[in-house]
Amino acid sequence: MAEEFKRIKRELVAKGHIIDYYHDTMQIPNGNVAVWDFIKHNGAAAMVAVRDDGKLLMVRQYRNALERETLEIPAGGLNGPDEPTDLAAARELEEETGYRCEHPEFLMSIRTTVAFCDEKIDIYVARNLIPSRQHLDEDEFINVEAYSVEELVEMIYEGKLQDSKTVGAILAYARKYGK
Amino acid sequence: MAEEFKRIKRELVAKGHIIDYYHDTMQIPNGNVAVWDFIKHNGAAAMVAVRDDGKLLMVRQYRNALERETLEIPAGGLNGPDEPTDLAAARELEEETGYRCEHPEFLMSIRTTVAFCDEKIDIYVARNLIPSRQHLDEDEFINVEAYSVEELVEMIYEGKLQDSKTVGAILAYARKYGK
Repeated sequence: MAEEFKRIKRELVAKGHIIDYYHDTMQIPNGNVAVWDFIKHNGAAAMVAVRDDGKLLMVRQYRNALERETLEIPAGGLNGPDEPTDLAAARELEEETGYRCEHPEFLMSIRTTVAFCDEKIDIYVARNLIPSRQHLDEDEFINVEAYSVEELVEMIYEGKLQDSKTVGAILAYARKYGK
Repeated sequence: MAEEFKRIKRELVAKGHIIDYYHDTMQIPNGNVAVWDFIKHNGAAAMVAVRDDGKLLMVRQYRNALERETLEIPAGGLNGPDEPTDLAAARELEEETGYRCEHPEFLMSIRTTVAFCDEKIDIYVARNLIPSRQHLDEDEFINVEAYSVEELVEMIYEGKLQDSKTVGAILAYARKYGK
């Protein structure tokens, strides 16, 4: 099936702050030609950070795209496409929450929105958190909170927690570790 | 916290096929001004389609953004921002798999990638599937497959199934219904 789609041309429409926007000219298997959207993203990493009492560290921040605050697991874009994602996840954990960790364990990878974007997020689990200090980016303003897995799962079904990496990560962690 | 961020300007950079790309000029709480990316999406709907034998209907299709095939739950964009998402999920199920359903049950909503995009996907569960016929869009080429929940969960941890709506939906369905 894959061989029948052919990309004839990829044109940069605009360079952005964290993404670039392209128009892809596609040859469709039925012979037609169509122009599809493509958003290029460098990739990201995220961390399920487990405190000794079993609660997870969560970050609350304002998201301009949704015009509201969200509750998410700590996460952020890679510092360039070659940054190892376990280091990036640990870096974002420390920057956003003020805790560091030594041996993040791989949980899974997700692709956020496959119809038009190549963004990949590698998600890890951190335990034995070590107090350090929060150091946010200039445009980051974040509150750190902690919840039990059961509380977070309830928030998912109640619609209070919708961010896809966070929904997937919490449910995948809960299932893997019997929470 | 939310009140301290202020959007000064939103400028359309380019109109796309399924998204529009904007530059948002933001006043940051520290007083700085920054230009952020914003991708506008009309929203989508997706269906966890459960056969009488408990297996879920999945669609395999080529995704240009990833340059490979993916395995996903049936899903698609809304026909305009006002289409009820339960009807959209049922429509996409029928178009993509050739099965229809009568009473889709709401499972949850996700936001695919909150750092730059407003895309929301409402996810439903369909049972008592009724054979109808597949009728794909002109540029859709899809294979329909069926897997047990256990097989799909395994694929998530093995990295064979990464699409965020699908990962979240399968784990949320599995937990809610004790699969």
